[in-house]
Amino acid sequence: MEHLPQQLEFLREIDQLKGIIRQTLLIDKSRKENSAEHSWHLAMYAMILSEYANEPVNVGRVIQMLLIHDIVEVDAGDVPLHGNGDKSEQEQREKAAADRLFGLLPDQQGKNLRTLWDEFEEATTPDARFAKALDRLQPVLHNLATDGGTWETFNVDEAKVLNRCGPQIEKGSSSLWEWASQEIRQYFK
Amino acid sequence: MEHLPQQLEFLREIDQLKGIIRQTLLIDKSRKENSAEHSWHLAMYAMILSEYANEPVNVGRVIQMLLIHDIVEVDAGDVPLHGNGDKSEQEQREKAAADRLFGLLPDQQGKNLRTLWDEFEEATTPDARFAKALDRLQPVLHNLATDGGTWETFNVDEAKVLNRCGPQIEKGSSSLWEWASQEIRQYFK
Repeated sequence: MEHLPQQLEFLREIDQLKGIIRQTLLIDKSRKENSAEHSWHLAMYAMILSEYANEPVNVGRVIQMLLIHDIVEVDAGDVPLHGNGDKSEQEQREKAAADRLFGLLPDQQGKNLRTLWDEFEEATTPDARFAKALDRLQPVLHNLATDGGTWETFNVDEAKVLNRCGPQIEKGSSSLWEWASQEIRQYFK
Repeated sequence: MEHLPQQLEFLREIDQLKGIIRQTLLIDKSRKENSAEHSWHLAMYAMILSEYANEPVNVGRVIQMLLIHDIVEVDAGDVPLHGNGDKSEQEQREKAAADRLFGLLPDQQGKNLRTLWDEFEEATTPDARFAKALDRLQPVLHNLATDGGTWETFNVDEAKVLNRCGPQIEKGSSSLWEWASQEIRQYFK
């Protein structure tokens, strides 16, 4: 039980992810989505859609990656895909956040989670590529279901959407991208 | 790809879980927690606290159970632990919700998720007992961190809290209950 206080401190600290607001609307358009419920939804995407991964994936690892992928936003905030935030500054903020937050945990457990988070960020394994694809796919579905959602908010056109979403989704799942790209083209018609 | 439309319909439908409001406060007390972010938080509890399970558990299965355990609330709503709702009526509503919601999925996938949800509800396996323990533990931590939270809202005393939380937490993790019961006693002193 010696590690329990550190572990509970981490679990209390990450409660703040529920207050990090993304740009994506909920499907009922009542409000914007927060990063904690977004992480839950993505984990469900992994459970339901793993058959479409380009390469065999370990669904359990993909789920765990998606559960932790946004935790750094507790310190670093969320940077919208279609916004004008400085991506390299954000990367530095997120690395510092990963140091602090995973550092709250007992040594080995913190290292394991940090390794999993780094794997997601680097996106060089089948599990990480599929996780990244889902992270990019989910807002597309929400925009399609909410009259354009952030595409309208940020005034982006078909070419920009295809260009910003395509590579990441296609690397993880060419079949999901085939479906999504058709839907995007249909939307902008 | 023939199953994709059903799967995406399910993923859109469960977006409504983000609008199901529980009684538990967020730790910063800014608002009440919704069931989607609660499910994310519990999955994180499983990742971090599995070493305290009474029996060996498959963490990946515990996580998946916790991700889906509240999905029925999309139709059936949330019934607070310390409220006066009719538990057997609620059980019927939740079963009907499970029929409808998991029924949106392709046949075998829907059956697999329903089986996992039934296992959680019945709580007769080590994985389900541990998942249930975490579901009961998390609100205790939030109440301890928010000046009593729902214990004050519903005006419940130490004996009621120990009685309503103890059996379920202890069956899954006697060490976590040992810690939590001490903290609860300390709070009510």
